[in-house]
Amino acid sequence: MIEFTHRLRVLYGHTDQMGIVYYGRYFEFFEAGRNELLRHLGLPYYRMEDQGFYLPVAEAQASYKGSFTYDDWMNIRTTVRELPSVRIRIDYELSNDEGTVLVTGYTVHAFVDQKSRRPRRIPDAVLQIFTPYFEK
Amino acid sequence: MIEFTHRLRVLYGHTDQMGIVYYGRYFEFFEAGRNELLRHLGLPYYRMEDQGFYLPVAEAQASYKGSFTYDDWMNIRTTVRELPSVRIRIDYELSNDEGTVLVTGYTVHAFVDQKSRRPRRIPDAVLQIFTPYFEK
Amino acid sequence: MIEFTHRLRVLYGHTDQMGIVYYGRYFEFFEAGRNELLRHLGLPYYRMEDQGFYLPVAEAQASYKGSFTYDDWMNIRTTVRELPSVRIRIDYELSNDEGTVLVTGYTVHAFVDQKSRRPRRIPDAVLQIFTPYFEK
Amino acid sequence: MIEFTHRLRVLYGHTDQMGIVYYGRYFEFFEAGRNELLRHLGLPYYRMEDQGFYLPVAEAQASYKGSFTYDDWMNIRTTVRELPSVRIRIDYELSNDEGTVLVTGYTVHAFVDQKSRRPRRIPDAVLQIFTPYFEK
Repeated sequence: MIEFTHRLRVLYGHTDQMGIVYYGRYFEFFEAGRNELLRHLGLPYYRMEDQGFYLPVAEAQASYKGSFTYDDWMNIRTTVRELPSVRIRIDYELSNDEGTVLVTGYTVHAFVDQKSRRPRRIPDAVLQIFTPYFEK
Repeated sequence: MIEFTHRLRVLYGHTDQMGIVYYGRYFEFFEAGRNELLRHLGLPYYRMEDQGFYLPVAEAQASYKGSFTYDDWMNIRTTVRELPSVRIRIDYELSNDEGTVLVTGYTVHAFVDQKSRRPRRIPDAVLQIFTPYFEK
Repeated sequence: MIEFTHRLRVLYGHTDQMGIVYYGRYFEFFEAGRNELLRHLGLPYYRMEDQGFYLPVAEAQASYKGSFTYDDWMNIRTTVRELPSVRIRIDYELSNDEGTVLVTGYTVHAFVDQKSRRPRRIPDAVLQIFTPYFEK
Repeated sequence: MIEFTHRLRVLYGHTDQMGIVYYGRYFEFFEAGRNELLRHLGLPYYRMEDQGFYLPVAEAQASYKGSFTYDDWMNIRTTVRELPSVRIRIDYELSNDEGTVLVTGYTVHAFVDQKSRRPRRIPDAVLQIFTPYFEK
């Protein structure tokens, strides 16, 4: 398993008139989490794009058990629980500073060739970085 | 079943550097779809808030089979397939003008009392509007 | 002078916890207005990008005299008051259905070559479309 | 003068298909800058709202001399150059890690009573915090 926690502060522009973070905004926080996880692995996302492929989102899901409000600190725990092959699944757990998990979710990404815009297997260079985390 | 189709145009600000609509933006399009469905039922969402309850999102999901690009027309088909009780599930199908479905998804909403911020059953006034659509 | 009015509905996701549209969101509405003005001229923006140049924003400004709220109709009146040369200035007036102007603003855009990313003069094909509107 | 610098990382969702940060997004970065400036003064914005007033934006402006791209660090230098009275003007300077200023701008805010939604003078508690910075 790979895991990384990143912290962000909730802005006014993230809230809606219910006084809580707008449900669609959490997918940006998920993105921030996976960006920082990839950077932590020494594999920042822009480098993937430099190598000729994209990692578009094939599926996204979020469960809202509670809600963040303006100015809250948000702790974004991002995990990869299975060695990726054609696709990669990333899980997110968003908690406040009291340790309460308020939002969970996941995204599934395909590896796509930039020119053909068609799916491809995980590039070897990426696989080599992930593999050690999933060996006993 | 209840169903309604709403049309929107994709803005430049909706795209990302992959040249397609950013994955988190689709949840705003889902919202536009359900807003128009509720208005079509004679039950615009602001009237729900006037009656003392909120309809926050408990879960949201999207599957991306293809992608919309700048300036595309997007046809948002919104459906409610089951009579709501404590929760309401709404499904979305987003297609282009060639009729190809590019993104699907759903949201699940809870009925919540505005003062207590606690879940409550579907208000009678709302139930009365939905019921006829689910009778044979 | 060139002018065009486009209508949009305010979404929940556009509001913030003050119960009004978030100030930064209006720049998306400005974009929607200028998109529709360009389309009305027979010059949709994507065609400009197809011809090898971008029209990035050099300056943007908004004055907030009042505020739009959830579910309001917004009438976006977009005008070009001077024949563009190296730059083009576009003005916006956003009013509600009672005819009250709530937000005004403008954007200034440069014509930029896509390859060199450097400023260039207005392309002839674009100039020809604008010129007749500024002749007496 | 009061000044504070805050750092943020550019997300994928902040970019558009031109490959740069969407012009309207910078107003969220301005907000992040002024939030952190107010917190640095010991006056976080939510405390203002707790005291019965809002600080809505009356005017906003941005000049784009260059552009931030995905994954860039952005240094947001926020300054207040004049002691506020009925209104407060805040200036922003956004630079990359090479020290180049790419975007500048300002916002003007009114002090507004939450109940009446009408303008009011700067609250004494706020004035007391600002005053020492403007004395020689």
